[in-house]
Amino acid sequence: MTNRPSTPFLDSIAGPADLRRMNMTALANLADDLRAEVISAVSETGGHLGSSLGVVELTVAIHAVFDTPRDKLIFDVGHQCYPHKVLTGRRDRIRTLRQEGGLSGFTKRSESEYDPFGAAHSSTSISAALGFTVGRDLGMPTGDAIAVIGDGSISAGMAYEAMNNAGSEGRRLFVILNDNEMSIAPPVGAMSKYLSGLYASPLGDLHKMAEGFESVLPGPIRDHARRARQLVTGMQSGNTGTLFESLGFSYIGPIDGHDMSQLLPVLRAAKTRATGPVLIHVCTKKGKGYAPAEQSADKYHGVAKFNVASGEQAKSRPNAPSYTKIFGTALTVEAQHDPRIVAVTAAMPNGTGVDIMGQRFGSRVFDVGMAEQHGVTFAAGMAASGLKPFCAIYSTFLQRGYDQIVHDVALQNLPVRFAIDRAGLVGADGPTHAGSFDIGYLAALPNMVVMAAGDELELMHMVRTAAAYDEGPIAFRYPRGEGVGLDLPERGEIIEIGKGRIVQQGSDVAILSFGAHLDECRKAARALETQGVSVTIADARFAKPLDRALIRQLLRHHKALVTVEQGAQGGFGAMVLHDLANDGLLDGRCQVRTMTLPDRYIDHAAPDVMYAEAGLTAVDIAATAMQAANIGLRKVQSRVVDQG
Amino acid sequence: MTNRPSTPFLDSIAGPADLRRMNMTALANLADDLRAEVISAVSETGGHLGSSLGVVELTVAIHAVFDTPRDKLIFDVGHQCYPHKVLTGRRDRIRTLRQEGGLSGFTKRSESEYDPFGAAHSSTSISAALGFTVGRDLGMPTGDAIAVIGDGSISAGMAYEAMNNAGSEGRRLFVILNDNEMSIAPPVGAMSKYLSGLYASPLGDLHKMAEGFESVLPGPIRDHARRARQLVTGMQSGNTGTLFESLGFSYIGPIDGHDMSQLLPVLRAAKTRATGPVLIHVCTKKGKGYAPAEQSADKYHGVAKFNVASGEQAKSRPNAPSYTKIFGTALTVEAQHDPRIVAVTAAMPNGTGVDIMGQRFGSRVFDVGMAEQHGVTFAAGMAASGLKPFCAIYSTFLQRGYDQIVHDVALQNLPVRFAIDRAGLVGADGPTHAGSFDIGYLAALPNMVVMAAGDELELMHMVRTAAAYDEGPIAFRYPRGEGVGLDLPERGEIIEIGKGRIVQQGSDVAILSFGAHLDECRKAARALETQGVSVTIADARFAKPLDRALIRQLLRHHKALVTVEQGAQGGFGAMVLHDLANDGLLDGRCQVRTMTLPDRYIDHAAPDVMYAEAGLTAVDIAATAMQAANIGLRKVQSRVVDQG
Repeated sequence: MTNRPSTPFLDSIAGPADLRRMNMTALANLADDLRAEVISAVSETGGHLGSSLGVVELTVAIHAVFDTPRDKLIFDVGHQCYPHKVLTGRRDRIRTLRQEGGLSGFTKRSESEYDPFGAAHSSTSISAALGFTVGRDLGMPTGDAIAVIGDGSISAGMAYEAMNNAGSEGRRLFVILNDNEMSIAPPVGAMSKYLSGLYASPLGDLHKMAEGFESVLPGPIRDHARRARQLVTGMQSGNTGTLFESLGFSYIGPIDGHDMSQLLPVLRAAKTRATGPVLIHVCTKKGKGYAPAEQSADKYHGVAKFNVASGEQAKSRPNAPSYTKIFGTALTVEAQHDPRIVAVTAAMPNGTGVDIMGQRFGSRVFDVGMAEQHGVTFAAGMAASGLKPFCAIYSTFLQRGYDQIVHDVALQNLPVRFAIDRAGLVGADGPTHAGSFDIGYLAALPNMVVMAAGDELELMHMVRTAAAYDEGPIAFRYPRGEGVGLDLPERGEIIEIGKGRIVQQGSDVAILSFGAHLDECRKAARALETQGVSVTIADARFAKPLDRALIRQLLRHHKALVTVEQGAQGGFGAMVLHDLANDGLLDGRCQVRTMTLPDRYIDHAAPDVMYAEAGLTAVDIAATAMQAANIGLRKVQSRVVDQG
Repeated sequence: MTNRPSTPFLDSIAGPADLRRMNMTALANLADDLRAEVISAVSETGGHLGSSLGVVELTVAIHAVFDTPRDKLIFDVGHQCYPHKVLTGRRDRIRTLRQEGGLSGFTKRSESEYDPFGAAHSSTSISAALGFTVGRDLGMPTGDAIAVIGDGSISAGMAYEAMNNAGSEGRRLFVILNDNEMSIAPPVGAMSKYLSGLYASPLGDLHKMAEGFESVLPGPIRDHARRARQLVTGMQSGNTGTLFESLGFSYIGPIDGHDMSQLLPVLRAAKTRATGPVLIHVCTKKGKGYAPAEQSADKYHGVAKFNVASGEQAKSRPNAPSYTKIFGTALTVEAQHDPRIVAVTAAMPNGTGVDIMGQRFGSRVFDVGMAEQHGVTFAAGMAASGLKPFCAIYSTFLQRGYDQIVHDVALQNLPVRFAIDRAGLVGADGPTHAGSFDIGYLAALPNMVVMAAGDELELMHMVRTAAAYDEGPIAFRYPRGEGVGLDLPERGEIIEIGKGRIVQQGSDVAILSFGAHLDECRKAARALETQGVSVTIADARFAKPLDRALIRQLLRHHKALVTVEQGAQGGFGAMVLHDLANDGLLDGRCQVRTMTLPDRYIDHAAPDVMYAEAGLTAVDIAATAMQAANIGLRKVQSRVVDQG
């Protein structure tokens, strides 16, 4: 507590309503306090610091001008919402950000009436805001809707669809483009070039402050607005069409998003005068006002706990390399052996590890931007040309390319390799980022091979297997975080398609693991063994095609068969049950249980805490096996706890 | 045969290579023959006539200029490919279009090397073409890639993502915008306005023929190109930026897509000179050259068999109203009772039946264009504002909005109603349009209620139930085609959430139907009964939440329980198996079987033929029940056949 900053202006306000009574100078002072508070809080919790620091003034200005929560403020992606949370009644919990039981790192409807629409995946805000404007126009108790969207997010197809539709609808709607010339990775795509050009060339003919709009402003505000335009663009006038205007929006900007004397009059003017959709182009600096963040915007996108004075982040000491790094390294080895191997990422070169391949084979790694739909079909086209694409997309984001997987890849049986990182529960990012559904939504597709890595060595095998497999699409999933610490070879081995493996042979109960819960299954087995229960552990490796011989062997020789997966119902366990049911093998001699994620969303916490909440610990597995085999539970539970 | 047109030019060519030796006049004559052939063929088969007639000259010109199949010609959506099929070795089968065992109504890789990338869903062509250009640049045996995309398809977010990425990549790539100012329905969205404006105003400052490009053309071609531009735009020059140029494309056009003297020189010039991505804007008329189609472009989008002389289409005599019409009518009744009800369609107002509501309540029906991602989140925003949105999207297209369903609807527990038409196998449109996966991909989601209508009366109940249910998201699926012919009330009734129903009570075997295969289950029961087998039929109504009491009751009192659904593995049957397995109820006393779509794609044919191929006839159901209950098969098979 003693190191906390002095924040007299922030201390004096109870909520956004107070901001509407403050003058520009007071609001600027409040913003300074708010920035200090956010830096202090995130230094204790870790989190998305850079994005939040970039929108401090903008957040203050929006709440000062608009009538939140009746007016609906919708942050795209939502990780820039920390100043917003501090201002809207959550200051007392801001130091619980992303902690178990604490505030979400994103906006979340259940947290506050000031979060009218939750976010985490990009490019949803304009669609949602348009929905609220229709609600307003049809008599629902809602005011204006304001979407705040970054230059990275607006380049996704979904945002374009929404702008297109909003332009066509013509309803009063505010879209604030938060242009910090930086998404998570250096921005890609022609849209980024367009925005950079707009910002960089002061005399370019695309710069514009909407003339018609400006001319009706009251005098003092008009002067402010004109000054703002001149400041940023150097232009006195100009009416060349912009991309946004071609989509039916009035365009205002660009303005300096850290200058209250630009933000307030422009927002007030927009609020007073707008009759249709308005795009307000605001330029901000990610990490603004905190030197270590400003100097290292990418690094401070997501930070650990850090020392405010030095900017030094707490180092986590990994026990083993991350699955991501192992994937990236193994992919690079395969790329070295086969020049046809290429990689696709959707704005996550570092997050997916394909940047490792990019360092060696830059011309064969494609960052398509936040564009999973395009990315998947682009990979399909490359596969059709004879290349061997690895499409590396997190489980949760691959949902964005589902139709393309069905229609362009699986139906055409094209050999696209899906490397699915962040499968299962992911920790602090919470339920929006959980990779819960991919097993089911992929295993349902004819032609698709679906693998999951039991550990990091298995992941290496699967990378090589996928590289070698050219008969059709193949997917392999692996979790966020570190491997279990195995010694690793230079290169993986090719696994026979559809072949699982026995990890240890026992005789009473069989645990059939699909994926990275294998280690938890081992712990369950050890606990069961201390009770005299003999346990077989098998690593299924494949949800599709199933190793039917292995499953039948387990069924024949055990009292119980428990499937375990880090995914929702309808996935691996369901495939096993379908197969056994339709062969008439579910006769009760071996009791089958399927352990999956439960039918509810699991709030953010450490992954092991989330899996405990999900009922997927070693204790749960052991108990399920015992109950299924009708063996007394005795002290299994305490034994597991003793063993840690 | 006697009524077939005389086509001497078409008769004289063996394939696209021949076109490259023909002069402009001969190619124009060939196009005339080709048009006559397509009209004649589609008059016998039905199909997508209007789109195909619009691209006859363009198809001829592309094959004459480019080196197909080494150059990759990719039609977006693909239903405009009939002239292409005639030219590329499939003339002898063109009168089998969309018939069982015949040619697909879309491009299809397995049909021809001239179909490098299959299509059916919109807006995939640019992504795929970009994939081929990378393949070419990395040494794969492929030439140039040419995407032909309509003005409707290019307005989807996926196409925008692809243009954005292609512009950024800067590779030589040809995108031909086939602008017929008409997608399936009258076009919507600001992009349509933009294109219409480009076309309509001859002196508008957005019209342009790329000056730099033009200046390096050889003289005669330059004259052609200039003439073309003047013809269409009336402009001598102009270099105002266009939307396409802002995305990094060179822009050429617009040109008249029915005039070989414009098409050939422009395509040749583009082919000769392009170093980066080029967009060629070609204006065509849907239905061109066939008066009944030109006069009624929408009607001739998809046609039945017709009389060539009169244009009169063969009338199909429906036995009962379609599910689509019943949905639209029931929705309108609910909208009348509750002003909060709104509807969303993605460019399918007629196909989904929401146009019926639109006639009464136009301001509450929203056509967002081909934009399922946006459409789903837009609906979520409306729900968050207090409205009651029905999001009416075909099963196959809802795959495009999957992440939005997960992240914006289900996770936030927002009451969006998903009306899912075309669930299951759909007939002539084939596997690309099959609605096979929605049960599984929706039932996996916490908070989601998943229903399927056993018949058209059930559909009415489900529309009303969805309107009344405001606790969270709810989905109901129903098939393409006619209902079974029930008498229908004015308004449906509210079903209790999670409650199935017993359709008939028996004692030997239980058939548990989820959805529109209920009638087939009835047929199976009748056949079983003639063999002395007593059959219970239950209509599950809900895949989520399951009617667990009903399922347990069926399990306790029968020798076999067979689940039946018009969907893939991992859906309803899987939910039943999970539930029973985890309660230890799969003890063999009642044998459980799950009948689903098989693990392969089913080629186009009449729906009943497709279901027979899928192993989901009454015979299959009866046989499965008998086998599961260990009852001799005797003559069930022949009895079912006798009964028709």
